Amino acid sequence: MTPKPTLYTLVISCPDQVGLVAAVSAFVAEHRGSLVESNNHTDVPQKWFFMRNVIDASAMDLDLRALQEAFAPLAERYNMEWYLRDNQSRRRVVILASHASHCLADILHRWHSGDLDCEIPCVISNHENLRSMVEWHGIPFHHVPVPVDDKSAAFAAVSDIVERHRGETIVLARYMQIIPPSLCERYAGQLINIHHSFLPSFIGANPYQRAYDRGVKLIGATCHYVTEDLDEGPIIEQDVVRVTHSCSKDDLVRLGRDVERSVLSRGLRFHLEDRVIVRGNKTVVFNP
Amino acid sequence: MTPKPTLYTLVISCPDQVGLVAAVSAFVAEHRGSLVESNNHTDVPQKWFFMRNVIDASAMDLDLRALQEAFAPLAERYNMEWYLRDNQSRRRVVILASHASHCLADILHRWHSGDLDCEIPCVISNHENLRSMVEWHGIPFHHVPVPVDDKSAAFAAVSDIVERHRGETIVLARYMQIIPPSLCERYAGQLINIHHSFLPSFIGANPYQRAYDRGVKLIGATCHYVTEDLDEGPIIEQDVVRVTHSCSKDDLVRLGRDVERSVLSRGLRFHLEDRVIVRGNKTVVFNP
Amino acid sequence: MTPKPTLYTLVISCPDQVGLVAAVSAFVAEHRGSLVESNNHTDVPQKWFFMRNVIDASAMDLDLRALQEAFAPLAERYNMEWYLRDNQSRRRVVILASHASHCLADILHRWHSGDLDCEIPCVISNHENLRSMVEWHGIPFHHVPVPVDDKSAAFAAVSDIVERHRGETIVLARYMQIIPPSLCERYAGQLINIHHSFLPSFIGANPYQRAYDRGVKLIGATCHYVTEDLDEGPIIEQDVVRVTHSCSKDDLVRLGRDVERSVLSRGLRFHLEDRVIVRGNKTVVFNP
Amino acid sequence: MTPKPTLYTLVISCPDQVGLVAAVSAFVAEHRGSLVESNNHTDVPQKWFFMRNVIDASAMDLDLRALQEAFAPLAERYNMEWYLRDNQSRRRVVILASHASHCLADILHRWHSGDLDCEIPCVISNHENLRSMVEWHGIPFHHVPVPVDDKSAAFAAVSDIVERHRGETIVLARYMQIIPPSLCERYAGQLINIHHSFLPSFIGANPYQRAYDRGVKLIGATCHYVTEDLDEGPIIEQDVVRVTHSCSKDDLVRLGRDVERSVLSRGLRFHLEDRVIVRGNKTVVFNP
Repeated sequence: MTPKPTLYTLVISCPDQVGLVAAVSAFVAEHRGSLVESNNHTDVPQKWFFMRNVIDASAMDLDLRALQEAFAPLAERYNMEWYLRDNQSRRRVVILASHASHCLADILHRWHSGDLDCEIPCVISNHENLRSMVEWHGIPFHHVPVPVDDKSAAFAAVSDIVERHRGETIVLARYMQIIPPSLCERYAGQLINIHHSFLPSFIGANPYQRAYDRGVKLIGATCHYVTEDLDEGPIIEQDVVRVTHSCSKDDLVRLGRDVERSVLSRGLRFHLEDRVIVRGNKTVVFNP
Repeated sequence: MTPKPTLYTLVISCPDQVGLVAAVSAFVAEHRGSLVESNNHTDVPQKWFFMRNVIDASAMDLDLRALQEAFAPLAERYNMEWYLRDNQSRRRVVILASHASHCLADILHRWHSGDLDCEIPCVISNHENLRSMVEWHGIPFHHVPVPVDDKSAAFAAVSDIVERHRGETIVLARYMQIIPPSLCERYAGQLINIHHSFLPSFIGANPYQRAYDRGVKLIGATCHYVTEDLDEGPIIEQDVVRVTHSCSKDDLVRLGRDVERSVLSRGLRFHLEDRVIVRGNKTVVFNP
Repeated sequence: MTPKPTLYTLVISCPDQVGLVAAVSAFVAEHRGSLVESNNHTDVPQKWFFMRNVIDASAMDLDLRALQEAFAPLAERYNMEWYLRDNQSRRRVVILASHASHCLADILHRWHSGDLDCEIPCVISNHENLRSMVEWHGIPFHHVPVPVDDKSAAFAAVSDIVERHRGETIVLARYMQIIPPSLCERYAGQLINIHHSFLPSFIGANPYQRAYDRGVKLIGATCHYVTEDLDEGPIIEQDVVRVTHSCSKDDLVRLGRDVERSVLSRGLRFHLEDRVIVRGNKTVVFNP
Repeated sequence: MTPKPTLYTLVISCPDQVGLVAAVSAFVAEHRGSLVESNNHTDVPQKWFFMRNVIDASAMDLDLRALQEAFAPLAERYNMEWYLRDNQSRRRVVILASHASHCLADILHRWHSGDLDCEIPCVISNHENLRSMVEWHGIPFHHVPVPVDDKSAAFAAVSDIVERHRGETIVLARYMQIIPPSLCERYAGQLINIHHSFLPSFIGANPYQRAYDRGVKLIGATCHYVTEDLDEGPIIEQDVVRVTHSCSKDDLVRLGRDVERSVLSRGLRFHLEDRVIVRGNKTVVFNP
């Protein structure tokens, strides 16, 4: 068996200009990197360029730090927002859950079986009922109740716990609480929610009841980054499932659970693999 | 080859009561009819019952008219809304189209190749460009312009043409005009529209532009009965197709066309096969 | 809150005859049962009739046993294969697993959260690695190795454990062992497998490798009853997921896992809700 | 409105080497071309590289011919199979049809409404029934019967007509005849078929009957390049549709028609937009 190669991922977002691909790929080649995957996209109306490169760095002449420094002048010339990371550095993902277990159990199982490449330093919930499941996975569980009359203290505690665990990404696994603007801002582009409808249908509360009342023939779920505007953040992934007149509202909830968990886990995977680039209220998702 | 059997379809909607299926199926059996297909549904919260029976009437002792009369007392006892029709009596479907050809061409081809069981006595359009296509199919084409400042006269003319052709069902094949309340009422439950979004997302104008601006990952189409409330009528059928960040707004329009035409043709088929029962703002669709 | 009604399910398969629906529904009505759900299907070429009724028995004049006895003469007259059961009597499902956890974890989570209506008296595996996960759910775990040179002793042990736990249904959750004919026969119609391809594509071993080599654009999974003919038993449920040229064989395996577990859980649910009727090598699935 | 830019498409397939993307993108940038779309893929096990670039050539310093000459040395250095074409040069697509109209009507309508970017110099059929439909579109129709006892003369005639019309791509729109090896070879990579099953399921004749007999829960269609090995050529596109026990064999045929035509039209579009690269028995499809 060949040794696993050292892989770096380089993600770029910048104004579109002639020669961008050439400049970046020449840089990689000059330092003896090899492109394993390379995706790019030009948003023509916005004249904006997006690029994601997975680089086999096994034979490169510089280490990560030195490479980042070497790339900086090129990035500046093209006004790039960019980052270059070692694929081995696993992101630290804190999960916020409430009473419902389906999304949390799905993420924990994928992580536990090696299918999701991240650390999960802890799970925070406003209920106690999922503690045993979380702790079985060897993950610390924090119970932070969110009382109706003192949410700010609760979110201060949540924020504190995330920081203490050096969380980088926060996943709202059906957390069912509105996140305060300060947290949205602080974790901008790193705060992932699963909404239980096919947005922009049924924004807000009780989407399944409203889907039932409207008599739609498909229900869905939406994984998106959280911004201050409720349910209006950049969409990462969506999917739907067919329903019929014979489905009760409870059937919609049950069928919806399966869509929610698969959409969330796909969205989270895209995020962890650096496949998602946000610009304005939209995403570029270089999914394979 | 066996001769084609005589088939009747009996459609029922009424308050739910014990013994309904027994009463109806006993009636059919007593008259020596045989159930070829039988679907029923109970809306438990609404306590309402829906039923569709396809009856092989080849050996029945009564003709259609006599059978309808024989059924009437039973229907009255159970407060049924109902109808019983000979499947051979093809519905007369008038199509209203505008400039875009994809939905119209699809319906005409299905009709022409024997795949859609109906008559198409005429096509009405506010543009001339599709005349030749319609007339090639041997179907009369009526050009009724809809001037911005005199829509009522135009719709009077449309209504008149539909009547003259004894149209029973009206299909809006991307007609792009708001139908006046009088027509909505007159053809209630017989006026079918295709909306170019996954309702209730993007109600109203320019859904593809708004889907593009919102960055959704799926676009859809909705076939529904038209009521006075724009885009709020009972939904018959919906479907979606996956799109990505690399799709331009024109790509969405193009991909959407395929969903529109397939959703409309499925919805129309369900309608023509008496599979759709409307109650309030929802439908029961006994699709196979 | 209204008390939960007593529900019975009556499942029938018999030669098609005029008056069947009438006879059955009259029987139910006479005993003051109310049909909550009623599905039927006539296989016209085979002249065979299938029926599933969910009966609200709260007001019935007979208990289950007496009702079964009362129905027997009618069943005999029409040559029915049939059963009538109380929905409260949960089926006992033994799960056989191997090394892979995804299907087992999915079923256990659904069961644990009350989403799958059955008992799971035990899990049997030829590996030890899933013991802790199973036992966390409070379910006994039996390790029965299946040595290449003495499979018959192993399967005798498996059979013994199933019997001891009074297992009614056996689920092969990626068990990866060929079941001996004696077990197939004994649990005919109660032995459910998930095959990791869209049958009849890639019958047999290594379907993902073969799908990769063939360059298919969709991969799938098939839930079916096990018969002596490998991968040829009656299909309960299937589904597919889109793949591209950029998917490695390992990507197919990963994407396939999600299809496998959702297809298996849907198939198992249909089975547990008495929605599946087998005749010959095909199934009728009255899914909602 | 801005003038439409001059677009070229450059398609490359070659052994994988470090610096390929850099070399190609530098070439484009040096000649003042701008990459509008750029996709690439590395087949890691095969060590093979695939690339497709859409170049805005409006500001380039060389015309197409000169650019091709300038690229040749670079192509030779990397052992590329490649072509560079002007997107305005529309491919000439000859369609072969039989009695069934659905795929042909679909392609003709897309072409007629400007949705498919190609020329259709003629349609050839072994039946007369579709002549009027073809001729209404202003396209010559050739009737070439294929008698069972003299197929080679028929195919000589077909080949002759294709040549006379300078056909580049041949589409078998449910042509239902086995193409002789000489034609397969001559139009290798340009001969597109739609098979009415989800290959490799139901290779050969009567797939819908066999799908019905097997009791599958999904049926599909496959668009592939034709090679000498029947139904074994490189797959371009596939899709499926859900079916149930209540579908007759004729229902499968009807539902299948919709999948066939949509899969064929998608596959043909990918081909015409130079999105498909064949290697061995597999394709890379850079679909958006």
